[in-house]
Amino acid sequence: ESTLAVSEKEKKMDSSSSSSSSADGKREEKGIASYWGIEASKITKPDGTEWKWNCFRPWETYKADVTIDLKKHHVPLTFLDRMAFWTVKALRYPTDIFFQRRYGCRAMMLETVAAVPGMVGGMLLHFKSLRRFEHSGGWIKALLEEAENERMHLMTFMEVAKPRWYERALVITVQGVFFNAYFLGYLVSPKFAHRMVGYLEEEAIHSYTEFLKELDKGNIENVPAPAIAIDYWQLPQDSTLRDVVLVVRADEAHHRDVNHFASDIHYQGRELREAAAPIDYH
Amino acid sequence: ESTLAVSEKEKKMDSSSSSSSSADGKREEKGIASYWGIEASKITKPDGTEWKWNCFRPWETYKADVTIDLKKHHVPLTFLDRMAFWTVKALRYPTDIFFQRRYGCRAMMLETVAAVPGMVGGMLLHFKSLRRFEHSGGWIKALLEEAENERMHLMTFMEVAKPRWYERALVITVQGVFFNAYFLGYLVSPKFAHRMVGYLEEEAIHSYTEFLKELDKGNIENVPAPAIAIDYWQLPQDSTLRDVVLVVRADEAHHRDVNHFASDIHYQGRELREAAAPIDYH
Ligand SMILES: [Fe+2]
Ligand SMILES: [Fe+2]
Ligand SMILES: [Fe+2]
Ligand SMILES: [Fe+2]
Repeated sequence: ESTLAVSEKEKKMDSSSSSSSSADGKREEKGIASYWGIEASKITKPDGTEWKWNCFRPWETYKADVTIDLKKHHVPLTFLDRMAFWTVKALRYPTDIFFQRRYGCRAMMLETVAAVPGMVGGMLLHFKSLRRFEHSGGWIKALLEEAENERMHLMTFMEVAKPRWYERALVITVQGVFFNAYFLGYLVSPKFAHRMVGYLEEEAIHSYTEFLKELDKGNIENVPAPAIAIDYWQLPQDSTLRDVVLVVRADEAHHRDVNHFASDIHYQGRELREAAAPIDYH
Repeated sequence: ESTLAVSEKEKKMDSSSSSSSSADGKREEKGIASYWGIEASKITKPDGTEWKWNCFRPWETYKADVTIDLKKHHVPLTFLDRMAFWTVKALRYPTDIFFQRRYGCRAMMLETVAAVPGMVGGMLLHFKSLRRFEHSGGWIKALLEEAENERMHLMTFMEVAKPRWYERALVITVQGVFFNAYFLGYLVSPKFAHRMVGYLEEEAIHSYTEFLKELDKGNIENVPAPAIAIDYWQLPQDSTLRDVVLVVRADEAHHRDVNHFASDIHYQGRELREAAAPIDYH
């Protein structure tokens, strides 16, 4: 019986320090024993060096389409639209006051919030798909991709702006509130939820445009781009923070389109699954 | 100002029936107006026919590794292990009584449950990554991939066994209970949560082995494999339900390994992100 054999093997492996697992990013090998035969594939870059990132793989990187129209705006037409619009506008005031012109810090903090809606929406659609025995039209993946993309924004900005303890505390509070609010909001009205995210993304574009202005004025130092950003957006090795902000802003414009589109689908009395989702729309 | 221009364009688009969106799976084009320029890419198969699935793309399909050891078992050593083991065993009795030998139906129903843990775990790790400004080591993706894989199992089995109304009602109830229980369980003890899923997968392997026996005895008709299964697992065109059950069972064995491994990492006092996640481990 294999049961005992595995049990013995386990004890053996536990006491040895050999490990088949390597750690993420800058973390070093730490010897995690495993008898499950799970080995993360080692990937090398074209220049022969090891691929450092476990949170994304080479085939998930992309060149951002920076030619996207940054000015596009959904004019609020209905009561719900206006409510979404003014909710976002109202949230901007405390944000402006708190961060002033510290756009690096602001970007980092806002990305912790921006990564919430995609995950919540994707999760709710996943469970809906299971409950209803229905296909998702790719929207689960599209929204989860958005959440991952926002998380990569955060992983990038935290390399250039280290959060302080009270900022960490603020993030935990805001996440707790926003997760619950968005979860309930999405259950009640996905139409409203996606519209609000559309407007949030319009504000994000504005905020990154201000960031660029400060960089150009020399008020914020145009430091070299973090290594993770160079790999994620396939940027040239000598890229700077300015290049990173440009591609991040393009990402936000794509999120704006996706979310306004999702809201429009609901406005037309349809369900998201009836329209093919924009997977890989960067 | 682009605002008004877009608004006019929107009205124009709204009244026209032209659409850039196509619908999922077997659903037909329905004309969803959009001025966001979002167009899902049309993909064709090597034989020139259109790729039908929006919930997964050709590059996400794979050939299941059916050579995986189906007998591997984690011997419960600690109190927590035994609790996880017996919780799963206890859950099997009502399941056995409810479904008896209707393995097609049983598979379909159980997949609606199996797709919960990966999504919950992935989501919680995503939010943890945001809160702590920490990389995930790829575990967010690995767990979300597991959830998607389980959803594809469901999408496959619902083609061969149509759920009845009381089964749909049961799914909604079970999902509500299990989502909350697993959510809380994962917050309290990810060690226990992953171990329990590991044992659930061991039971799933057993259940699919019984399914195969019934197919071989002729008690269940070995119908042709659903189209979605042929595309998802890159199966030959003349594959049957038996071939599908074989690859699904191999998937479950992979989930077993991943979850027992995740639990082991916690048992060694480590965090998941310290070990590279098995992405694309099928
Ligand atoms: Fe972002
Ligand atoms: Fe965004
Ligand atoms: Fe499954
Ligand atoms: Fe499974």
